[in-house]
Amino acid sequence: MAKIKAALLGYGTVGQGVYTALKTHRQRLKGLLGEEVEIVGVLIKDPHKRRDIDSNIFITTEFKDILKIPGLQVIFEAIVGEEPGYTYLRRAIEKGIQVITANKVMFARYGKELLQKGKEYDVSVRYEATTAGGVPIIRTLKQILQVNKIERIQGILNGTSNFILTEMRNNEISFDEALKLAQRNGYAEENPTSDISGKDAFCKTMILSELAFGKQPIWSEVELQGITAITSEQVKQASQRNLKYKHIADIYQENGDLKASVKPILIEESHPLYSVDGVDNAITVEASLLGRFTLIGPGAGKLPTASAMVEDLADIYTVKNRQLQLSI
Amino acid sequence: MAKIKAALLGYGTVGQGVYTALKTHRQRLKGLLGEEVEIVGVLIKDPHKRRDIDSNIFITTEFKDILKIPGLQVIFEAIVGEEPGYTYLRRAIEKGIQVITANKVMFARYGKELLQKGKEYDVSVRYEATTAGGVPIIRTLKQILQVNKIERIQGILNGTSNFILTEMRNNEISFDEALKLAQRNGYAEENPTSDISGKDAFCKTMILSELAFGKQPIWSEVELQGITAITSEQVKQASQRNLKYKHIADIYQENGDLKASVKPILIEESHPLYSVDGVDNAITVEASLLGRFTLIGPGAGKLPTASAMVEDLADIYTVKNRQLQLSI
Repeated sequence: MAKIKAALLGYGTVGQGVYTALKTHRQRLKGLLGEEVEIVGVLIKDPHKRRDIDSNIFITTEFKDILKIPGLQVIFEAIVGEEPGYTYLRRAIEKGIQVITANKVMFARYGKELLQKGKEYDVSVRYEATTAGGVPIIRTLKQILQVNKIERIQGILNGTSNFILTEMRNNEISFDEALKLAQRNGYAEENPTSDISGKDAFCKTMILSELAFGKQPIWSEVELQGITAITSEQVKQASQRNLKYKHIADIYQENGDLKASVKPILIEESHPLYSVDGVDNAITVEASLLGRFTLIGPGAGKLPTASAMVEDLADIYTVKNRQLQLSI
Repeated sequence: MAKIKAALLGYGTVGQGVYTALKTHRQRLKGLLGEEVEIVGVLIKDPHKRRDIDSNIFITTEFKDILKIPGLQVIFEAIVGEEPGYTYLRRAIEKGIQVITANKVMFARYGKELLQKGKEYDVSVRYEATTAGGVPIIRTLKQILQVNKIERIQGILNGTSNFILTEMRNNEISFDEALKLAQRNGYAEENPTSDISGKDAFCKTMILSELAFGKQPIWSEVELQGITAITSEQVKQASQRNLKYKHIADIYQENGDLKASVKPILIEESHPLYSVDGVDNAITVEASLLGRFTLIGPGAGKLPTASAMVEDLADIYTVKNRQLQLSI
């Protein structure tokens, strides 16, 4: 039986999640796609680190070796930062390889170029995993809300920040204590800057903006503020008034201009994001026909992010199969 | 330019919503599909009722006249009850007409047959509007969660019941008072039996079950209970313990058996459906990779339901267009 040959770029949390998901869901994928999906190569950084990867899988520190794998059809990119992610994916697309990425920093900057290049080379470029991990907002906006005009998007896009704000409120602790708790629980990295400064949520906001409104606001004009300045006293006072601080990304059009902000705001109980606590992410969409609806799910994590990437894969190949059936 | 010719069966709230949505979103549809969508016929019951329908549109009380419309490609079915809806759609499919339905009572019973017939005749059968109006749960389960194994579904599937329970709690009123309020606000029909008995939610539960688990439980074995027996005293006592009565549909597998119930249960603040109030509907899905995620949106209403039907239409034709591109 033919196999879909895939490679992983990066073997951190997300890379390992994809590896595991493909193993545990092998039969389902085979049933769905009519072919097995096989990881044939993994790009790593440190050749000396011990990894739990099957011995027949090719492991390399050189991307050019990945590209040389005969019959490679799909690349899952799970590395961090604009480069070398962008260059790798550009080259993969030029070789006709389908790409599925979880790299939000890269995609916020270069998503448009990659999608354009994908069209040029008739290659799918999928990025569900870049934004809000286990909340399938990308494909909901792209596939399910095509006729609806999107009017506004509000989201809690960073699980770490949301966890910290939730803990500060529920357990009346300081920002520093909540951050330490997040780190102990594995919800925040040793260097949490990207999460607590709002930078991470900012990248996701730009990706949503491009998709929903066909453009991004000028980056320097987006009001960007993290959660570091919020005191336990402020949280307590808000709580007494039945309000919550939430770190909210907001994108909407005003007089033809696209406006966006990513910052902590005080919201009331009637706000659809009020009940979203802990590491969950959520997105509220206001659409012309449907009205207002909200998606809530795990913000990140090994398997939810892998879920997004593996579902992207399934979508690429089920669409291909439908096309094939018709052209026979 | 070629046009997509469509007919409406029924011109109640939903039918009117589709008519309006196609008008207000004409340009978006044309941009998306490359063709205009035109309502060319409307099936009505009472020929004497005044309706705000363009004079060039064919109006009839006879379904056979609808089927005779030359070049008819799509039927939007928005009538109530198992029959004549089922027979109409069966005949439409046999003529090669794409069908989009909002008729949950019919689809709970005959959905499987219609989908099978659709395959046979290479016709799309779409039913997003049957279940939870503005919550795009059908296509989320069908298109976005293909690899994930669905483990459990819990939902608030009836907006009228949810409104009544919300009002009983928030305003400390009786069931009867809350029902009257729902009727005054247009959220409940003059005969609200189907909503408050749980029958409406039951039909939607069966449709979800078929989709997510490939089968339905035996109907008589499903524990079905409405909200009519809940007293304001019970609601008050629950509220004091920070609990809420919610009318919840629940489907899950246990030792290979499919279990389902549709009944009011007491839930805690940590339950993902706790915050879903008023006429909103919501569905929580537990999936093997993604974990638990929740969709919340308008439960029904003219435009949200029409949104589901018009998005179904767009999906049929964008998939067709993609296939066409490849086969050229």
